[in-house]
Amino acid sequence: MPDLASTMDQLKASNQNSDIDAVVSKLRERFQDRFSTSMALREQHGHTTTWLKNQPPDGVVFAESTEDVAEVVRLCAEHKVPVIAFGTGSSLEGHLNAPLGGISIDLSRMNRVLEVNAEDLDCRVEAGVTRKDLNSYIRDTGLFFPIDPGANASIGGMAATRASGTNAVRYGTMKDVVLGLTVVTPQGKVVRTGGRAKKSSAGYDLTRLYIGSEGTLGIITELTLRLSGQPEAISGGVCPFPDVQSACNAVIATIQMGIPVARIELLDEMQVRACNAYSKMDLAETPTLFLEFHGSEAGVREQSETFSAIAEDLGGGPFKWATAAEERTRLWSARHDAYWAGKGLKPDADIMVTDVCVPISRLAECVTSTAEDIRENGFLAPIVGHVGDGNFHVQILVDLSNEEEVRKTEAFVERLAIRAIEVGGTCTGEHGVGQGKAKYLRREHGDALDVMQAVKQAMDPDNIMNPGKILPQS
Amino acid sequence: MPDLASTMDQLKASNQNSDIDAVVSKLRERFQDRFSTSMALREQHGHTTTWLKNQPPDGVVFAESTEDVAEVVRLCAEHKVPVIAFGTGSSLEGHLNAPLGGISIDLSRMNRVLEVNAEDLDCRVEAGVTRKDLNSYIRDTGLFFPIDPGANASIGGMAATRASGTNAVRYGTMKDVVLGLTVVTPQGKVVRTGGRAKKSSAGYDLTRLYIGSEGTLGIITELTLRLSGQPEAISGGVCPFPDVQSACNAVIATIQMGIPVARIELLDEMQVRACNAYSKMDLAETPTLFLEFHGSEAGVREQSETFSAIAEDLGGGPFKWATAAEERTRLWSARHDAYWAGKGLKPDADIMVTDVCVPISRLAECVTSTAEDIRENGFLAPIVGHVGDGNFHVQILVDLSNEEEVRKTEAFVERLAIRAIEVGGTCTGEHGVGQGKAKYLRREHGDALDVMQAVKQAMDPDNIMNPGKILPQS
Repeated sequence: MPDLASTMDQLKASNQNSDIDAVVSKLRERFQDRFSTSMALREQHGHTTTWLKNQPPDGVVFAESTEDVAEVVRLCAEHKVPVIAFGTGSSLEGHLNAPLGGISIDLSRMNRVLEVNAEDLDCRVEAGVTRKDLNSYIRDTGLFFPIDPGANASIGGMAATRASGTNAVRYGTMKDVVLGLTVVTPQGKVVRTGGRAKKSSAGYDLTRLYIGSEGTLGIITELTLRLSGQPEAISGGVCPFPDVQSACNAVIATIQMGIPVARIELLDEMQVRACNAYSKMDLAETPTLFLEFHGSEAGVREQSETFSAIAEDLGGGPFKWATAAEERTRLWSARHDAYWAGKGLKPDADIMVTDVCVPISRLAECVTSTAEDIRENGFLAPIVGHVGDGNFHVQILVDLSNEEEVRKTEAFVERLAIRAIEVGGTCTGEHGVGQGKAKYLRREHGDALDVMQAVKQAMDPDNIMNPGKILPQS
Repeated sequence: MPDLASTMDQLKASNQNSDIDAVVSKLRERFQDRFSTSMALREQHGHTTTWLKNQPPDGVVFAESTEDVAEVVRLCAEHKVPVIAFGTGSSLEGHLNAPLGGISIDLSRMNRVLEVNAEDLDCRVEAGVTRKDLNSYIRDTGLFFPIDPGANASIGGMAATRASGTNAVRYGTMKDVVLGLTVVTPQGKVVRTGGRAKKSSAGYDLTRLYIGSEGTLGIITELTLRLSGQPEAISGGVCPFPDVQSACNAVIATIQMGIPVARIELLDEMQVRACNAYSKMDLAETPTLFLEFHGSEAGVREQSETFSAIAEDLGGGPFKWATAAEERTRLWSARHDAYWAGKGLKPDADIMVTDVCVPISRLAECVTSTAEDIRENGFLAPIVGHVGDGNFHVQILVDLSNEEEVRKTEAFVERLAIRAIEVGGTCTGEHGVGQGKAKYLRREHGDALDVMQAVKQAMDPDNIMNPGKILPQS
């Protein structure tokens, strides 16, 4: 494998034709106060929540329409200058860094909900609309948009990274809820993929090719989304288990019995301790599942009862069932604050978050080995997971200014990625590749990586779209 | 738009380097009695259930392993000879025709279920396994494979055409249930996409790029599939409506209320009449919904009752609820025999089947206009649809030896495709493009078709993989 430095040198060499100064001056003239080269703004548009070193772009344009985006891309294409799309800056793997410089296109002002078709359970939004804003907008329709990554991310960014979250076990991930896209190609053309039909077999699935492509094949500017009906009833609760294995077995049994669980989340012992402290909970400090059921009144009662019997059978429980809305809200606020709770374990620490996803039959062994690895290395690193999908996260509290700690953390992340791949899983379930996970793709995909490379080369021959991400040699 | 003849001439010219004789002689030597050039077999491997003119390949190889497939593709690639994958021959749009000649690779002997992981609700199969064989194989595990196109198709062929069927409204289409693929590339390399994790954001979604690519980007030889738990209880029934509009409104209300209906099928008046005659039913001859609910005993009862109330509210009903297994089987046999029932309306006729898919809010108007079009043209053409997805089929009884009838039928199919595209739908919901629908893709996809073309060009630069399908200029 070539080392990072030489890859970057190669990349820079291949971009030597770029003429960033010309682009900057044309953008300033064209976009006036919607274009900036201030260092603070450029840095903010570089890494944001990632732990990787900041590599700021050369300038930031605030786009207000698909045509704005197309115009910027055309200009950059002409000068072979990199373009990087920016939503809310909540990605975690260096997706927004500009290792070769270039222009960041900020889509946050493209925040209009363009149409809502309640009868068809779909809507069309601009890429900068955030998931929370969309849900506020459609609240009165009886519908909701179920995909909920930790951050209040933009819908465009969520599509670009193939995001998911706690509801994915029931409602799927971004790949399942996007019906169609408007995309600006690397040549600055505007294309539309998919449509409003619920299914189609009319040609290549470009929609899903762009989803998860992290802005390396084009920039998503609009999305047609499938919405879900707000459930008539919701119930939820927490259930402690003696160990990770029995909690995972309860998950497997729940899925196998076809209980349409809406959320099923594992918090390890350290995460429960952190949540107790941060969110003033009094949970038993043992591996715990947080659950939520959606359905009719009778349906959610039945689901809760069936789950309760499963848990008891496996030595877990009691399942504490929270029906009251405020009790449920308190519970899920604690779950959603897991990140801050984790940080609370060592407030002055930096945070490095990583995720993997494995077949659920291998989940217990994978979480258990990871917890052992954490103990052996003396990390403060709670584990929390969307375990219905076999997906879990480790949040490592680290001092990023301490090289030795960073090196140890990177080695841990590498062991975790390899552990997941070796049991038939993936090095990232929902965070994406960015810069951080690119080095594991050959191991995960083998020669299929060459096919990805061929697709990239065909669609973006000058490698201007978010270069240095996903593909090790892009 | 260039006409078909000139496109074909161009294609033939671009393949003038092909050396089919050399390939045939090498295949005969290598595969012996697993290779044939008999005209009967070649014709059978050409069009099968399609209405399009037969264009047989030059020879047929019976592959028994991925390595066999790779070997044939490498040989064909060396000589720039087309290769066409064959499963069971149940495709409908000329997918298997060989307009430029070439070698058909028959995968029907690759019919082993390679592994079943009940804990993970997944399995791995060779591409030639049929959906019914898979379901027989896994029956005792408590799991089932839900995708059910009309024919007992091969799983590989179903992935290649992005097939679905009656269960798609609840369980999704092939794009939703395939976790990973083994694919032979146009260069004869074997690559693996996806994995066994339920979700991943590790790079481009090649799995879904190959699904629906109809053998034009590579040949699928193995698939990892997500299975579903067999429902604890099933109930179903039929519900008549005064007109298509009220039936469609009942579908919309059912979906909007979040009733997790497993099947919801519309039969128009002519189709009901055909089923009554063919399957000895006594249904009222009016637009009718066939429904099935999956869940717990209490759940399916609740779903049935809620649907019943919806139907009554919209002037439909009574909903006749079939709980007994034999009654349900009789009902769904009648539904599955709709094709034969339709043919029964005029036993000496040929059949031409087409499908489109539209947003469900536009379904009633689209079905109604289509029924009018049928009446105006004096066609015998029942309509049946997977209406929960907005997908419907028209089965036209036609005399294919009568040029005037064929011309009229083609004009009808074109009007239908355009009608669907114009309301935001697609020219094919589940049958695929093949040769028959290629001419509508520019209208449906606009400039996105150029992106598809670029992907095809990058992955298969010599255009040897199922040429003349999907892309008008391939």
